[in-house]
Amino acid sequence: MRIVSGMRPTGKLHLGHFIGVIKNWINLQDKYDTFYFVADWHALSTKYDEGLDLNELSVELVKEWIACGIDPEKTTLFRQSDIKEHAELYLVLNMITPVSWLERNPTYKDALQQIEYKDKNNAGFLTYPVLQTADIILYDANLVPIGEDQKPHLEIAREIVRRFHYLFKKEIFTEPKELLTEIPRLPGLDGRKMSKSFNNAIYLDDDENTIWAKVRQAKTDPARIKKTDPGHPEVCIVFDYHKAFNPDEIEEIEKECRAGNIGCVECKKRCAAKINELLTPIREKKASLKTSEILDIINEGNKKAKNIASKKMEKVNSIIF
Amino acid sequence: MRIVSGMRPTGKLHLGHFIGVIKNWINLQDKYDTFYFVADWHALSTKYDEGLDLNELSVELVKEWIACGIDPEKTTLFRQSDIKEHAELYLVLNMITPVSWLERNPTYKDALQQIEYKDKNNAGFLTYPVLQTADIILYDANLVPIGEDQKPHLEIAREIVRRFHYLFKKEIFTEPKELLTEIPRLPGLDGRKMSKSFNNAIYLDDDENTIWAKVRQAKTDPARIKKTDPGHPEVCIVFDYHKAFNPDEIEEIEKECRAGNIGCVECKKRCAAKINELLTPIREKKASLKTSEILDIINEGNKKAKNIASKKMEKVNSIIF
Repeated sequence: MRIVSGMRPTGKLHLGHFIGVIKNWINLQDKYDTFYFVADWHALSTKYDEGLDLNELSVELVKEWIACGIDPEKTTLFRQSDIKEHAELYLVLNMITPVSWLERNPTYKDALQQIEYKDKNNAGFLTYPVLQTADIILYDANLVPIGEDQKPHLEIAREIVRRFHYLFKKEIFTEPKELLTEIPRLPGLDGRKMSKSFNNAIYLDDDENTIWAKVRQAKTDPARIKKTDPGHPEVCIVFDYHKAFNPDEIEEIEKECRAGNIGCVECKKRCAAKINELLTPIREKKASLKTSEILDIINEGNKKAKNIASKKMEKVNSIIF
Repeated sequence: MRIVSGMRPTGKLHLGHFIGVIKNWINLQDKYDTFYFVADWHALSTKYDEGLDLNELSVELVKEWIACGIDPEKTTLFRQSDIKEHAELYLVLNMITPVSWLERNPTYKDALQQIEYKDKNNAGFLTYPVLQTADIILYDANLVPIGEDQKPHLEIAREIVRRFHYLFKKEIFTEPKELLTEIPRLPGLDGRKMSKSFNNAIYLDDDENTIWAKVRQAKTDPARIKKTDPGHPEVCIVFDYHKAFNPDEIEEIEKECRAGNIGCVECKKRCAAKINELLTPIREKKASLKTSEILDIINEGNKKAKNIASKKMEKVNSIIF
C-alpha cells in the first residue's frame, strides 16, 4: 500500500507540525510504501509575492523531516517541482475538471472569506485541488493521510479520477482513499492557532533558552492569581503542552494544579524541560546534517519518483492523444 | 522579430483556414523568424470527450501546412505537448493570474453563452489564455498574428508578463504585441460560418468532383429565378468565393451577373474550376508527403523549440524558487 503526502516549504517547522503531521508520517513509514514531497509549487499558490527562497526552504524542510526521524531508507523524499510530470498531469486534468467542482470546494469558499486569500484568488489557488490530485495519482497512492478538513479535496481527486476513466474509457489511476488521522490540536502559546504570523510558536530548532522564554509567557488559567489558588487545567495552554509532551506526569500535574500545590512557573519549567528533551536530539541531528547530504537524498528520491511519474505520464499520453 | 502562432489539430483544414490563417502564415515566414505549433493540449480543452486521435490529427495538420506552402526551412514547426515547458510555465503563471482576469475575458464570457461550451466549462477552458501566454512568452515572441476578436487574449498575456516582472522583480519575458491581420471572412456554402459541424466547408484535400458537388449547392441570390433575371452579387455566396479565389475575373463576373448574362450554373462552374486550380497542387503535395517525413520535420522543430523553451524555463525557475 502506497502513501503520498506533501508539505509546503514556507518556513521552519514548529511543534504544531511535529504533533500534527510529522509524528504520523514517522509511524506510517514503517507500515507503508511512503512518498513524502516538498510541495514547492503549492507554496507559490499563496506565497508567490513573499520573496521566499524556496530552494533553501526546501532543503531546510527535508533536513527537519530527517532530523525528526523520517528515514530516507524507508521513505522516498522528493521535491515536487523537480518532477515536471506533476505540471503536465495538472494541465491535462484541468481540461476535464469542471470549474464548478473547484468553486464548490469548501476549503476554497472558506479561504475566500479571509482577506489574505481573497486578494490571492488566482487561477493556481482555484485549481489547487487539481494539482493535489496530480501529486497523488501520478504515484497510484492508495492512501493519503489527511485531517477531516481535507476530505473535500480527496473527494475531488476521486471524482477527477472517475471522470478521466469515464471519458477516456481506460482505468489507469488508483482512486486514493483517505487515511483519516486524528490530528491533536496543539494551540499556540497565546491560545490561538500556532502560526508563524501570530508569533506564538515553538520551532523545532529553538534552543533551551528560547523554549523557556516562550513557555514562560504562555497563557495559563487567568483565574489563578496566587500559587495557592486552585487551577483549571482545562483552560490552561501549558496543560495542553503537558498532555502532548509530558504524558507520564500529566495526572500528577493535573492533581497538583487543581489543588494549588504547584505554581505556574514551576509547572512551566517542567513543561519546557520536557519540550527541550524532545527537541534536543532533533536540534542536534539537524545541526549535524549537511546541505549536500540533503541534496543527495532529494536527488535519490527524485530519481525514484521521476521513474514512476514518467511511466504513468506516458500511459496518460498514450490515452489522451 | 519572432512570431509564434498555433493551430488546434481538430480536423482537416478547409478553405476558411486557408484564407484566414495559412495564407498569412506563408507571407510571414519570409519576413520573420516564425514558429508555428500544433496546439494539441489546447484541442483537449473543448474536445476532450470526442475521442480524437490527436497523434494522427497532428501529423495531418502539419502535412496540410506544408502542402499549402509552409516551409520547414523557414519556419520552426513543433508540437505543443512535446515541449513540456508549456505545461510547466502554465502552472507557474496560473499562480499569479487572478481568476477575475480570466472570468472577465470576453471570449470566455461569450463562449459560456453557447451550450457547447457551457457544458465544457472546465478549468482548462477558463485558463486557456494562461496556456496561450506560456505558448508565446516561452519563445519571446515579439508579434502574434491575430484577428480583432483575439485582442483580449493578448492583452491578458501582456498583463501576466507585467505582473510576473513586477512580482519577481526581474524582466525576463518579452511583451508580445499583436500583428493585427485582416482576416477575410469566407462564409460556408450555406452562408453560415464555415465549419465542419455545419457541413458547409470545402476541404483542402477535396477532389475536383467533390468541389464541384459542393459549389453546385452553394446559396446564390434567391431573387434570381431565371438566368436572365438580373443578379445581386452582394448577397451571393458564390460571388464571395470568386472574390477570394478568382480575382482576375471578378469584375467581369459581377457585370455579367447583374446583367443577367451568366447563369448561376456557369458561374459556379468557373468558381469550382478556380478553387480546384488552387487546391490541386496542395492536394497533390499532401498526397506525396510521407508521415515519416512529417514526423522528422516535427522532431527537428521540437528540438529547436525545446532548446529555447528549456533555457527560458531555467531562467523562470531560478527566479521563482
